[in-house]
Amino acid sequence: MRAETIAVGSELLLGQISNTNAQIISRALQEIGVDVYYHTCVGDNEERIKQVFKIALERSDVIIFTGGLGPTLDDLTKETVSSFLNLPLQLDEPSLERIKDYFKKKGKPMTQNNYKQALLPEGSSPILNRKGTAPGVLLKYGEKIIIMLPGPPFEMEPMLTESVIPYLAKSSQNTIFSRVLKFYEIGESLLEEKIKDLIVGQSNPTIAPLAKMGEVTLRITAKAEDIETARNLIRPVEEEIVKRVGQYLYGFDNESIEEIVAGLLLTSKKSISIAESCTGGLMAHKLTNIPGISEVFERGVVSYSNRAKQELLNVKAETLGEYGAVSEQTAMEMAQGIRITANTDIGVSITGIAGPGGGSPEKPVGLVYIGYADSKTVIVEKHLFTGDRMDIKQRSVDAALHMVRRMLKGSGD
Amino acid sequence: MRAETIAVGSELLLGQISNTNAQIISRALQEIGVDVYYHTCVGDNEERIKQVFKIALERSDVIIFTGGLGPTLDDLTKETVSSFLNLPLQLDEPSLERIKDYFKKKGKPMTQNNYKQALLPEGSSPILNRKGTAPGVLLKYGEKIIIMLPGPPFEMEPMLTESVIPYLAKSSQNTIFSRVLKFYEIGESLLEEKIKDLIVGQSNPTIAPLAKMGEVTLRITAKAEDIETARNLIRPVEEEIVKRVGQYLYGFDNESIEEIVAGLLLTSKKSISIAESCTGGLMAHKLTNIPGISEVFERGVVSYSNRAKQELLNVKAETLGEYGAVSEQTAMEMAQGIRITANTDIGVSITGIAGPGGGSPEKPVGLVYIGYADSKTVIVEKHLFTGDRMDIKQRSVDAALHMVRRMLKGSGD
Repeated sequence: MRAETIAVGSELLLGQISNTNAQIISRALQEIGVDVYYHTCVGDNEERIKQVFKIALERSDVIIFTGGLGPTLDDLTKETVSSFLNLPLQLDEPSLERIKDYFKKKGKPMTQNNYKQALLPEGSSPILNRKGTAPGVLLKYGEKIIIMLPGPPFEMEPMLTESVIPYLAKSSQNTIFSRVLKFYEIGESLLEEKIKDLIVGQSNPTIAPLAKMGEVTLRITAKAEDIETARNLIRPVEEEIVKRVGQYLYGFDNESIEEIVAGLLLTSKKSISIAESCTGGLMAHKLTNIPGISEVFERGVVSYSNRAKQELLNVKAETLGEYGAVSEQTAMEMAQGIRITANTDIGVSITGIAGPGGGSPEKPVGLVYIGYADSKTVIVEKHLFTGDRMDIKQRSVDAALHMVRRMLKGSGD
Repeated sequence: MRAETIAVGSELLLGQISNTNAQIISRALQEIGVDVYYHTCVGDNEERIKQVFKIALERSDVIIFTGGLGPTLDDLTKETVSSFLNLPLQLDEPSLERIKDYFKKKGKPMTQNNYKQALLPEGSSPILNRKGTAPGVLLKYGEKIIIMLPGPPFEMEPMLTESVIPYLAKSSQNTIFSRVLKFYEIGESLLEEKIKDLIVGQSNPTIAPLAKMGEVTLRITAKAEDIETARNLIRPVEEEIVKRVGQYLYGFDNESIEEIVAGLLLTSKKSISIAESCTGGLMAHKLTNIPGISEVFERGVVSYSNRAKQELLNVKAETLGEYGAVSEQTAMEMAQGIRITANTDIGVSITGIAGPGGGSPEKPVGLVYIGYADSKTVIVEKHLFTGDRMDIKQRSVDAALHMVRRMLKGSGD
């Protein structure tokens, strides 16, 4: 089955946003064995949308539109498809009810132009949109499958995952199954060096390394008639990789490091508190993205000023005076201080220089100390991260989460 | 002059990378008044590249390829263009010298397949690549301009800026200039309703609404022979829009709400402290993304537990007992508490239910109270947000930042 995506929106052609939807859709289709052959972007112009749609109908079995489903006059996707295929737009009552409901919940008036969003081409079905007013559209036209999704990725992605992919998976012959291994503290080159013979020697499954900020992943992908066969192809390859570089492996598939840490805290029933300086609350934010974390996360403190470090964490004035806020000693007192004041099993601290200002030859931008305290031990790690302010915040939090993971693993096994 | 981009590379269609080149190129072309009408991505397949190229030649004056100029067998852009137009590939000696030089400097051996990169279609000229081995190609074919650039953005972008844009600017008559107005607390539909006559009545400048999570933007775009004329076309339209919906306008162009708030705090020299519950540190994180914020941001507290609210913010046990942690009263005491303990001009608090668990009929998921305290006043806003845990955290922080902005504007004017 050949698919292509068509993104509709002048903002794409003006370079105001990037067509990330095409990437999200391609990745999802690949996993169910549907080949994507083209991506197209076109502006909010009926004639040009029509031309692009005509070309797509000639060469593809599945056409996925994104964008142009909004309430405004320049939202033209449904109108153009409907007029090109001669399928008049009809009011879909359940969709209208949903839209009315949406505005009611928001306590805002529904305007006349929102009615337009409840119109669907004859013979099509709506795709549920949990995040916004525009329903998606699923239309079988002869042998062709035409799908229309809204442009905002936060609306589009759940609709893709929950409705479109399950639907298309039924029509696809092959299953593609992937397993992702996630590594920390090993570079892409070294990792590849250690398993090069496996990468070169394999065609099903394939092994593809991918470097992201601060981590490397290996994707093992098998193609087979069913998922069980694909899993069986992957298993021995995964085992061999774990044998060689298992000490750097920390997770699988979509698990984030904060999910892993939250899982370890919840199962071991260990409470945690966090004292952050340069990361400004990012570690607490990441951990509190995990539902249920309130059972173990007691508090966080963003001690940006020295006074806050003294008042809330009992860091000694002499320590700050002698060693400075960015030092091993301060990180240690912060970790102990938050642990004791919050009365938790674990205390974590981060203090460093995120930049762009504030660096010196002795304490350059990117210097970060991370502290960990529990009832038995206090340790501090020193890091020198590269990148801009945001990168340094991210890398610091990743390092702190990995540190907590290692300590919990070490004590829990 | 109509332009389009064609990105060549199977990694795009597999969703491994996103076609950010299209965005970079579009933005640059827009500034010199060249309209981009289409973006296409196609895989490393000669037949399909040919088809896409054929379509592009029929509808565009300028065609910019990215990708497929590498040394390997699946790099096919030049080969396909050359065979389709019947222009044989010829060795370009200066390009070969540059490639040899590149390897010499790196101290690496030049392999046979790198010779391929010095081959150019008859009648074309090389475009200098300072960052890699593949030269770009500039080819005039009748009235058409065909440009080929390498795929990696760090190679592509300097070539675009230094060579392609100056070349195309000479052929283009126009400048396009855009102004973006950012609105909060007004929906896309209502906003459009209020300025519909302007949208419909205008062709230069054009007005285009775009909805993002929690905000709506209006882009006003003018086309003129120079930037000053374009600005003059935009000004009266902008003034008319401000007259009608100015009370919802909060910023322009790429400014984020946290940048705006940070700017207001810094210029008014007002210090701030933040007490967060359901947002888990996200507000402190966002604000501390702004360099220099340490001058005014004293501390943040993530008071996840009731004990933390009492110990760090002096919220009364009776208040928590009687009204609960998610209540107007608690939000008020949190804002006052953080302001007084941190000794700052402003104290902000957020307490709510981010879900998915923890909701009840009286206090559903999405219920959030936001408090603001300064020396003169304490106010609390009640919100009911929709979406998942992450959405509710984001919307709560946006609402809190907008509240601070409004208060600073109100007192500062």
